[in-house]
Amino acid sequence: MTTPAPAPRAPQSRAEFHERLRRIGAERYHDLHPFHKRLHGGGCTPDEVRAWVVNRWQYQSRIPMKDAAFMSRLDDPQLRRIWRSRIEDHDGGVDEGGGIRRWLALARAVGLDPDYVASGVGVMPATRFAVDAYVRFVRDMPLLDAVAASLTEMFAPRIHAERIEGLLKHYDFADDASLAYFRNRLTEARKDVEFGLTYVLDHADTLEKQDAAAAALSFKTDVLWAQLDALWHGYVEGRIPPGAWQPGQGLLAASAASEVA
Amino acid sequence: MTTPAPAPRAPQSRAEFHERLRRIGAERYHDLHPFHKRLHGGGCTPDEVRAWVVNRWQYQSRIPMKDAAFMSRLDDPQLRRIWRSRIEDHDGGVDEGGGIRRWLALARAVGLDPDYVASGVGVMPATRFAVDAYVRFVRDMPLLDAVAASLTEMFAPRIHAERIEGLLKHYDFADDASLAYFRNRLTEARKDVEFGLTYVLDHADTLEKQDAAAAALSFKTDVLWAQLDALWHGYVEGRIPPGAWQPGQGLLAASAASEVA
Repeated sequence: MTTPAPAPRAPQSRAEFHERLRRIGAERYHDLHPFHKRLHGGGCTPDEVRAWVVNRWQYQSRIPMKDAAFMSRLDDPQLRRIWRSRIEDHDGGVDEGGGIRRWLALARAVGLDPDYVASGVGVMPATRFAVDAYVRFVRDMPLLDAVAASLTEMFAPRIHAERIEGLLKHYDFADDASLAYFRNRLTEARKDVEFGLTYVLDHADTLEKQDAAAAALSFKTDVLWAQLDALWHGYVEGRIPPGAWQPGQGLLAASAASEVA
Repeated sequence: MTTPAPAPRAPQSRAEFHERLRRIGAERYHDLHPFHKRLHGGGCTPDEVRAWVVNRWQYQSRIPMKDAAFMSRLDDPQLRRIWRSRIEDHDGGVDEGGGIRRWLALARAVGLDPDYVASGVGVMPATRFAVDAYVRFVRDMPLLDAVAASLTEMFAPRIHAERIEGLLKHYDFADDASLAYFRNRLTEARKDVEFGLTYVLDHADTLEKQDAAAAALSFKTDVLWAQLDALWHGYVEGRIPPGAWQPGQGLLAASAASEVA
């Protein structure tokens, strides 16, 4: 005697599913993390800001590799053409550079040697593990999940705007040049979000896929949150793991550093 | 009693190693294959040309995915910026397209429906296996070997020039529009070769690495050769494998096809 298979549950409506994704951001995005509040509220010491710049570099610098891994799985040329702009935004051209070069301008502004930051030497293992987990996720998981994981960009314009305002208000190093990365992301992220969100809403056409996409987005919020947890533990509580950046390391030569708050 | 480890053999000089790579092309590149000679010599039937266009699409269309897989492993932003131009050449922009759209112009010129060709439905399994082996190689092997495998481009300008001349002379479908893919590759491939060759000559600084790079280039000539073997077997000898393109399939509507030789 066989029992009948249970009827598949109906997918959420487009609006319900969209709202579900938005709620993940409202509940789990790293703008809720105490380190973020401390940073944009002006509560970070210069060394805590530096630790953030050193570690966040690991994330920034892996984003184009993550996007290339995603593109390497796209057999639709038109989708590749659209996605390629993310790599262009971050890497930029051979001469002018892009987002990651703007990140190094921020490194310089906080008194760090950009070559030291770019070397990745001082990054905490926990940061590396979180970022590597994201790159692997995008390389290995279904395309829908990989796109869904990118949707933290939905919540990014808010955090970037808040960050620019907070940093400008509280830190002497902050000016248009040093914060160019965040300003550019305000517009770059918007076009990426529109595309990614439409893709996810269009392709998550069963409840199973909606669940997987929501889980992917939650996973990505974990990736971001874990990085701020590690920063807090290492540099606010002062339990810096072996081999990670120590205050005083990787600074610009004195003449350049003296310009920095 | 321990025997002393054998002294490591000295690497080849830069000139010797370069010559070794060139010789691989002279002995193994697919311009030596009878299908190539038949094609550019005007000996192919229209259906043999079509079979080539259908199958070669698989290779063309995977090249940007292969390059993205390579970029996903590059943690040097500058190297990524340089390599990205290969994807740009093949995929082009959202509106204008690139090399693979030019390939579909060739498909149309030989009377095939570009959508059919782009679907990849008629591609022979042997073609798919060879192309997949190349993409996997570039994704998994050391970076030096992956770059070395791309060096078949050293020999490509010769084959493209020969092909353009041969096709123009022998086939009515051949004109500037339908052969635009090959004309563009004459200049695009040149800059890629210069960069790749310098990279390989610079980085293969032990005999072991030189051997691996030479093996990678040989492997790549195998990937290209195997595709022409499959074409010969399937369409010259007429042993088309199950599921592969059959003459008469995927043609343009009659009105468009009548323009074609």
